[in-house]
This record gives sequence, structure tokens and C-alpha cells, in this order.
Amino acid sequence: MKLSDIVEARERIQAHIRKTDITQMSLPGGELYLKLENLQATGAYKVRGAFNCMLQLSEEQKHAGVIAASAGNHAQGVARAARELGVHCAIVMPAGAPLSKVAATKHYGAHVTLSGNGYDEAYAHALALSKGSGATFIHPFDDERVIAGQGTIALEIIDAVNPAQIIVPIGGGGLAAGVATAAKGINPQIRVIGVEPANAASMKASIAAGRIITLISTNTIADGIAVKTPGDVTYPICRDLLDDIVTVGDDEIAQAILHLLEKGKIVSEGAGAAAIAAVLNKKIALTDDGPTVAILSGGNIDVNMISRIINKGLLRTGRMVSIHTLLSDKPGQLAMLLSIISGTGANILTVQHDRISADMDITQSAVAVSVETRNNRHVFEIRSMLEDMGYRLL
Amino acid sequence: MKLSDIVEARERIQAHIRKTDITQMSLPGGELYLKLENLQATGAYKVRGAFNCMLQLSEEQKHAGVIAASAGNHAQGVARAARELGVHCAIVMPAGAPLSKVAATKHYGAHVTLSGNGYDEAYAHALALSKGSGATFIHPFDDERVIAGQGTIALEIIDAVNPAQIIVPIGGGGLAAGVATAAKGINPQIRVIGVEPANAASMKASIAAGRIITLISTNTIADGIAVKTPGDVTYPICRDLLDDIVTVGDDEIAQAILHLLEKGKIVSEGAGAAAIAAVLNKKIALTDDGPTVAILSGGNIDVNMISRIINKGLLRTGRMVSIHTLLSDKPGQLAMLLSIISGTGANILTVQHDRISADMDITQSAVAVSVETRNNRHVFEIRSMLEDMGYRLL
Repeated sequence: MKLSDIVEARERIQAHIRKTDITQMSLPGGELYLKLENLQATGAYKVRGAFNCMLQLSEEQKHAGVIAASAGNHAQGVARAARELGVHCAIVMPAGAPLSKVAATKHYGAHVTLSGNGYDEAYAHALALSKGSGATFIHPFDDERVIAGQGTIALEIIDAVNPAQIIVPIGGGGLAAGVATAAKGINPQIRVIGVEPANAASMKASIAAGRIITLISTNTIADGIAVKTPGDVTYPICRDLLDDIVTVGDDEIAQAILHLLEKGKIVSEGAGAAAIAAVLNKKIALTDDGPTVAILSGGNIDVNMISRIINKGLLRTGRMVSIHTLLSDKPGQLAMLLSIISGTGANILTVQHDRISADMDITQSAVAVSVETRNNRHVFEIRSMLEDMGYRLL
Repeated sequence: MKLSDIVEARERIQAHIRKTDITQMSLPGGELYLKLENLQATGAYKVRGAFNCMLQLSEEQKHAGVIAASAGNHAQGVARAARELGVHCAIVMPAGAPLSKVAATKHYGAHVTLSGNGYDEAYAHALALSKGSGATFIHPFDDERVIAGQGTIALEIIDAVNPAQIIVPIGGGGLAAGVATAAKGINPQIRVIGVEPANAASMKASIAAGRIITLISTNTIADGIAVKTPGDVTYPICRDLLDDIVTVGDDEIAQAILHLLEKGKIVSEGAGAAAIAAVLNKKIALTDDGPTVAILSGGNIDVNMISRIINKGLLRTGRMVSIHTLLSDKPGQLAMLLSIISGTGANILTVQHDRISADMDITQSAVAVSVETRNNRHVFEIRSMLEDMGYRLL
């Protein structure tokens, strides 16, 4: 694996992929640069590796088709490349894969099979199908052609800005291996730092142990980088070239998704937000030596999940609060409560008023008021004022 | 107002603003190009006009400060420019302005006053304050310096692609006037088409009437372009230079916001999505003559609103459904219902099971199941199957 492989990959794939923009986000410590692979075709960088791999297949191999196992971005990347190159494509997804991801993969014309309980079983099934049918199995990360394709991101970053640091999310290590090979090959002074979810840090564990470690389980909202075992090809490259690997928790990732949405106007999936989460939580510092570029690897997040992250984030930061209390069931009580809350400068969003419930006196009604607030101090003020006035808050 | 004003504006402001990217979105009829002003500093294009205006103030004027009325992007644009240029800035926002917008404006160091019931009263108050204090009033659109600043977007578009059409949202007409002046000045063949919300189409009404019309009211989720009266400066420019104005409804705008979020991985506010809504709803056709570029004017949407749009969109397109029914209150009834629903390939999201409610028999329980589905046909299948099996759906 060397720089020239990646330079060749860029030549090979450039007509097929988008050269994505780098934007800036102002943080307290300075500007963070974001490489927007969420704006890549298919919504994630995976299409780079898929094209670089499939453009090197022989005519015979193309005729026999390709197969891959994935519940996510690799599936869409392979399916899109296959459609564009006129190659038959089968994708095995684990049973219970989100319907939106199944639909997106089918949209690119792939033949989708739902099989297996989780990724490992889907992977085994795809490998077996590949042996039976002669179709080429396209590995999501442990393949030099795939790695070289992902590494083209680093060439684009280095062309656009003169980075001091590149921060890259790590799942199986394909993106990290490609980016590190390209960046260190051009300028060994560029720091390349990996980020893993705390509950799926298989590369960090493997490097610490000095050998490839398999995690018993992974549990993270960054499903795109929830990988139990680093690759045989990617592991030694990451071990030798990465300057560091840091980990981020799910709460930190969710907050980064919300920050990107609200302040950056950017939709990111969990894996895509991991590198930004590391900076927001000061696990990686910006530097005066030059730009720090975080790779926002993808934007394929379920919109249901966005909705949940927004609500959780608003509650956590005190910008929304639900106030539950009991009212004596007399006229005017609800109006009075609402006017007290509004009087603090809060905006009332929803009111649920319930006279019939199991655990209440017959003379009482329950009310739940959802309120837009400024911050946690504002929430505290409202709650204190109501308690001082005799409301029992539930 | 001429092209050279806009070329000079670009020179003047370029060190202060971001040159935003143009990305592509694949639609059934071809590729739509999006000028991403949501990634502009402050999250909207307004900062361009604010800088172009304030960079032309005399030292004396700078010393006396600036004032503006706005509940939205103009406030942030003026506040940001003022901070960068070291000018005192007062912003009048209508009472009841979203707390997030107030906070964002204060974040740039502006002195925010909440005053007036709606924009018109805030505007009148700001104008009075300006006369009293000697601070320069920065108009949101009806000022040649502001218009020239907004027009710089067209220069960037024309530099980057060779557009056949530019689609521009219209509120007061500042952006449209600037873009049309620049585009027609460079190449009169470029079609420039405006988009207004159906319930706030004051420019279209004015051009149809042949004179400036004031709407009695506006009512649209595209609050950034809910303007009752076009400007004295902007009206004749739009009348003379725009090829057409089309209108879009709030549902179409909400759907475009969701489409941009889900397919484009882009956060857009209502005004920003209006131009895209016009294309998605075939009010403007793509053309073989060259790229069609829609100006995505801003991304400052309240995250609560995003959450609501997501849920409404999922329900409308049959990707989520709530099934309400009654069960006889015996063991196993709920499990059976859930297994029937899952058997159709739907994913169960939430279950609410209620034994105590006013309008039920004592032997019944009510259940509400929220389900992830593929499409409206899938929803129909589930509902039909349940009804055939004797469930009474509420």
C-alpha cells in the first residue's frame, strides 16, 4: 500500500465521484474544517472504494457480478458503482435492517437479500453465495483497492487546505488506512488521528494489545463504524501510521449530530459525527500549526433518529422542558398555570390536560406542559417558582 | 443598479464571507444544482448585503452604530458584520421571536430589543430609534448596497457552472434583484425565475397589478420570505428582469425541506427550500440548455420545526403509521396484534397500551401502535388485513 496506489485511484474514479467541498465551523478554540462526504454520491465516502475496486475487475469478473454484505453505506456504494458499470449486484443485509436503507439500496438496482441475525451472519452468507456463484465479493474495508479508493479523500483535503491534522473515524479501518497512507506519503508532518466509538473501539484495543482483537459486542449509535474486528490489511497500516486513536461516547456523538444540524446546517450520521465529537469534547485540540480537518464521512441517518436526537438534545440543554403537575379541577386553574410559565419568558409548545387517570383524586386533573426555554437555569427558575407557589411537580 | 455595482461588491466583501459550494441533487428529470448559502457564515446569504452596506459607511456613521429590524437572518447578518467591523449594533425583534433566534443574534454581540407585535411594528420601532439616535438603519432589502451584496451569489454561480436557469426565492426582492441584475448583465440568455410562497406572493401580485401591492397578511412556514410589501427599489428591478415568478404551498415547502434533509443531507429553512420545492413540484422544469441552479438561501430553521416536518412527512408518505384499535382485555391479545403487524414486514416503533380511559368498555383495552412502513400501499395492506381479521380500527 503506497501513495502511488491512491494517486492512481484518484485518476481511476474521478469521473464517477464528486469532489466534495470543505467547509468551516467556528468553535470556541478556532475554526474546524469539515470534509463533507455526506454530500458525496450515495451520501457517504464508501462509493470511492467501491468504484476503485470494481473498475479493476476483468471483463469476466464483471460478467459474473459482485456481491457484498452491509446494512449501510457500503451496500449503497457497491450498488451504485455496479449500476453505473453495468455489473449485476447482490447485497446481503441482516434481517431487520432499516426499511429506508433497504429501499435506498434497491433504488440503485441491487438484488437485496435479507438474511442472518446481524452483520456477521449476513457476511458469512454473502461469502458463501459468492463462492457458489462466482460473483466477486467486495469487502467493505479489508481490500487494498477499497482502501486506496477511500484514501483519495486525503488527496482532496491536501489540495484544498494545507492541513496540520486530519481526523478520521475508524470502523474496520479502511478509510483511516487510506487517508493515513496518502497524508503521510505526501507529508509525514501531517498528524492523522483516528476516532472510534467507546463501545466499538476494536482498532484501539488491537493496537494496545499488539495483535488483532475481536470485541465480544459493539453497541453504538454510530452503526457505520460498529466493527468487531479490524482487518488483516488495515490493522498494520493503522498501527504504523496513525498518530493516535481517541474514543467518543454515544452521548457525545448525538450531541455532535445536533451541533452539526443546528450550527453547521449539515446532516451527519453517527459515524460521520464521531470525528467532530472528538474535537467538541476536547479529546483532540485544534492547533496553531494549521487547519484541522475532520472527515464527515457520511449523512445516511434515519430521519426518525434525527427527530429523537433533537428532542433529547433540547431537553438536555434546557431548551425544552416538560412540566407535569396536578391541578384542582376548578375553572381557571390551567389558565393560571400557563400564564405563570409564560411570564418567565418561556414559550408554551404543547399542553395535555387529563381529568381521568388511575392514580389521581377525583377532584384533581393532571397537566403536562411542554415549554421552550432558554437554558437549564431558566428551567430551574420556572420549577422553583412553581414549587414556591405550591404546585407539586411530578 | 448595474453589474459593475455587484462586481465591486464582490471585491469589497470577499474577505468577510464564504464562497459557498454548489452541489448536485439527482432528480427524476436530471441534476439540480444547489447553491449552498445555508453553509454561509450566519447560515444565510444575508451577511453579504450587510457587509456590502456597512463597509461603505463613513467613519462617522460607523461611530454612530447601526440598527435593524428582523426576526431572522438579516438580524444575524447585520450583527455579525457589525461585530467584525467594530460597529455598535442594535436589533429590534418582534416580541415572541423564537428564543433560538434571539440567542443567535445576541451571540454576535448585538443589543437586542424585543418590541412590537409582528415585524411591521418592530420595523417602525427600529426606524424611530434610528432617527432618535443617529444610528444608520440597515434595510433588509430595499437598499442598493444590500441588493448588490446579495447579487454576488450570481457571480459565484456563473463562475462555477454555466447556468441556463437560476431559481431564486423572493421575500422583499433584494436577493432576486441582485441576482437578476448580475446574471442578465453577464448573459441575458440566463433565465432568472423567482419563487414565492403562495400565501405571501406580494411581488407576483405587484407585477400582475403593475404597481406595488401590500398584502393584508402573510401566512407561511417560509418566515424568511413572508413580506407584505415589495421594496421601491427592488420592485422595478424584479418586474423588468425576472423571466417568471411561480408560487409554492407550505406543504410543498415542508416536503422540500424533508427531501433536502433525507436525500441531500442538507439543512434548509423554509425560504431556502422554496426554490427546490418549485422544481420538485414541476412548477419549473429542468432544461437541456444547461444547469439549473436553485439558491438554497439559508439553513436557519428551528430544530423543533425539523422534528415536526419529519414526523408529518413520514406519515404522509406512508413510512410511518399509527394504528389505534381496541383489544379484549385478555392475556396474549397484544402479543397477537404485534405479531400480525410484524408479519407484514413492518417494524414496530412504539406501543401504548391503555386499560383505563373514559370511552371504553370495562373489558376492553385501547392500544396505539406506531409502525415503520414501506409506503402507503404497505399501510393499506396492514389496515385491510387487520380489518379482515375483525379488528376495529379507530
